[in-house]
Amino acid sequence: MEQKRVALVAAGITRFGKRKATFRDLIAEAGKATFDNNKNISPKDVKAFIISTVYPERSAFQGHPAPLAAEWCGVRPTEFHERVENQCGSGTSAIRTAYAAIASGLTDLVMVIGVEKIMVPSHMEIFLNAMGGTDREWEGCYGVTPPPLFAMVAQAHMKKYGTTEEQLAMVSVKNHNHSLNNSFAHHQKGATLEQVMTSRMIAAPLKLFDCSTNTDGAAGVIVALEDKARDLTDKPVYILGTAQVNDGYPWANYPKDWSSWPSLKLAAENAYKMAGIGPKDVDVAEIHDCFTISEIIEYEELGFCKKGDGGGFIEEGLSDFGGEVVVNPSGGLIACGHPFGATGIRQGYEAFLQLRDEAGERQVDGAEVFLGHNLSGLGEHHILVYGRN
Amino acid sequence: MEQKRVALVAAGITRFGKRKATFRDLIAEAGKATFDNNKNISPKDVKAFIISTVYPERSAFQGHPAPLAAEWCGVRPTEFHERVENQCGSGTSAIRTAYAAIASGLTDLVMVIGVEKIMVPSHMEIFLNAMGGTDREWEGCYGVTPPPLFAMVAQAHMKKYGTTEEQLAMVSVKNHNHSLNNSFAHHQKGATLEQVMTSRMIAAPLKLFDCSTNTDGAAGVIVALEDKARDLTDKPVYILGTAQVNDGYPWANYPKDWSSWPSLKLAAENAYKMAGIGPKDVDVAEIHDCFTISEIIEYEELGFCKKGDGGGFIEEGLSDFGGEVVVNPSGGLIACGHPFGATGIRQGYEAFLQLRDEAGERQVDGAEVFLGHNLSGLGEHHILVYGRN
Repeated sequence: MEQKRVALVAAGITRFGKRKATFRDLIAEAGKATFDNNKNISPKDVKAFIISTVYPERSAFQGHPAPLAAEWCGVRPTEFHERVENQCGSGTSAIRTAYAAIASGLTDLVMVIGVEKIMVPSHMEIFLNAMGGTDREWEGCYGVTPPPLFAMVAQAHMKKYGTTEEQLAMVSVKNHNHSLNNSFAHHQKGATLEQVMTSRMIAAPLKLFDCSTNTDGAAGVIVALEDKARDLTDKPVYILGTAQVNDGYPWANYPKDWSSWPSLKLAAENAYKMAGIGPKDVDVAEIHDCFTISEIIEYEELGFCKKGDGGGFIEEGLSDFGGEVVVNPSGGLIACGHPFGATGIRQGYEAFLQLRDEAGERQVDGAEVFLGHNLSGLGEHHILVYGRN
Repeated sequence: MEQKRVALVAAGITRFGKRKATFRDLIAEAGKATFDNNKNISPKDVKAFIISTVYPERSAFQGHPAPLAAEWCGVRPTEFHERVENQCGSGTSAIRTAYAAIASGLTDLVMVIGVEKIMVPSHMEIFLNAMGGTDREWEGCYGVTPPPLFAMVAQAHMKKYGTTEEQLAMVSVKNHNHSLNNSFAHHQKGATLEQVMTSRMIAAPLKLFDCSTNTDGAAGVIVALEDKARDLTDKPVYILGTAQVNDGYPWANYPKDWSSWPSLKLAAENAYKMAGIGPKDVDVAEIHDCFTISEIIEYEELGFCKKGDGGGFIEEGLSDFGGEVVVNPSGGLIACGHPFGATGIRQGYEAFLQLRDEAGERQVDGAEVFLGHNLSGLGEHHILVYGRN
């Protein structure tokens, strides 16, 4: 089937962090930032709207967020609107859905807002009630939360491939230092190897600085059909490829060896095939560093290095500026924080900056291809590949 | 843009009612019923999966339902998967999204499961916490829930058009009597005009029998690209048209006269245009009778009768068997019950039966065109038009 070209034409973001702003304040702030980014688009031109959000019912005590969010962005959708949710991968899923809505012909322009208001006094209740993306009856009931699960992943990878705690820590150092050039990140102080290595143990071998931070935040993008995109901006950022794979849920059903993520490998292959590229063509990537070990395994499964070489890849500086691919120039989930539904949209925002040479101090020179990746569990992966052309 | 033809190829449903089954039991039951319906499709053939569900975080204490539901249906999606939510309109939104995923080329076959487990001891908490689809900070905080809102709609329609309480009651009588031929409906006892008119007042003029029932239930459909659909069944049921309009949120922002729903009128026009038909071509419809007044206004805005004539339309029997269009032959939300995320999928199931002459005692003879409609508020409407060809 002929693929219709679809592109980002605007993007905006809020400050991430412990915000006083409410759920709807964050939506309005991201909406305004997105419209301010492209003065050729006004809210009344937008006929399709998607919200990506995970916890509004629990942390913001608000259900039915799609029309509420549209209203707070000044949009009254007459062609397509809905909420998309896929836990930590909701944002990438939402942009994929915007792509589908446009490529299917149902609409030709979609605003996508990702938002999470999570830093409320009761926010740990979400995890204590096993809402952290696990199966409540079979896993969550035992109190399992993401840190110990990813700690087991790290242990498996260290045992099988000799990955070290220092290599894990280097991911955190890189991403924290990247955030020195990112004014919307939750953390903007950088980090030293010693700081990371001596930070409080959370679930061995993962220390506090190996973990990403829950945070409040929102981001927006506007996605359009190619012809329309060219009318709205001189520099559309195209969606070249996308893929999504879910292979096993709950966690216990995932294949025995947690140090390999075949579902991510498959998703990467599918996304590269659709984009007509290979992993070496990726210049810059924002990938799901919910924990440092995740980023290391993602280097491998995305094909940036060989399986098992992820620890060496970070140690040799190959995922940093001057390396083979700049990974998480924004600071990633570790430094930006992870407002679940907003993270994939934040990655789209970063793609929009990087592929238009608008990323300022963190610009990757000559970046032509950007890869965005979210995961929602070892077996659930969501990818978007963006390009200048 | 060229429209790709997309069709239903399988459908299944659970018994609706106060079920002992859990959230995941309902999913598995609907999944099995759907696969049992078409033996040409096995779970391993399904590479895309959408779940439509509204309240799992609150009523089933389970987040991240998409991969869990896929797993319980035996499906491991490698092309597209997500949760779609639009409150009461989630089911129709989910089938629209399946259409978009297929017509965009991202996949060629999608399983869609709609489910709600709501009849838990704490289920009124959902409404008391203003989760009933209203804006919590501006509306829900005052304790407003759907019955008084729709009571105001009914009062406006009665005042402006002379619609009577008896006419409202006739909608309930028709739909309850239809359910005598529906073995999965929550209520299957029929009703008399006297029963409805003397039932307990909920919010004047709406009495108990004017209201639909919260219920547990799930339903599934499988949607496929035309070529694939023809390989899988001799009688695919095509999606001819679809539309979605949201015009105003919260309720207070809706245009002054609540007796007219211009957003539904626009959605109907858009859906008919895409389908290449007019309202008189609709033979059978399942429309959103969350309250009896809703069905009457829907007759008007969908073009089944003139604006203001909805009361007469039911009174003259024109929306019943032998009339102009058979509305809610299943019993609708009033008799089937309304398991939020499942209702639009239940309508798809009914379309599948009616357009394959498989609806048994409630079959509409020679039905060629079926209209399904959900609302998620006065201003938020979702439509699918199905046809044999």
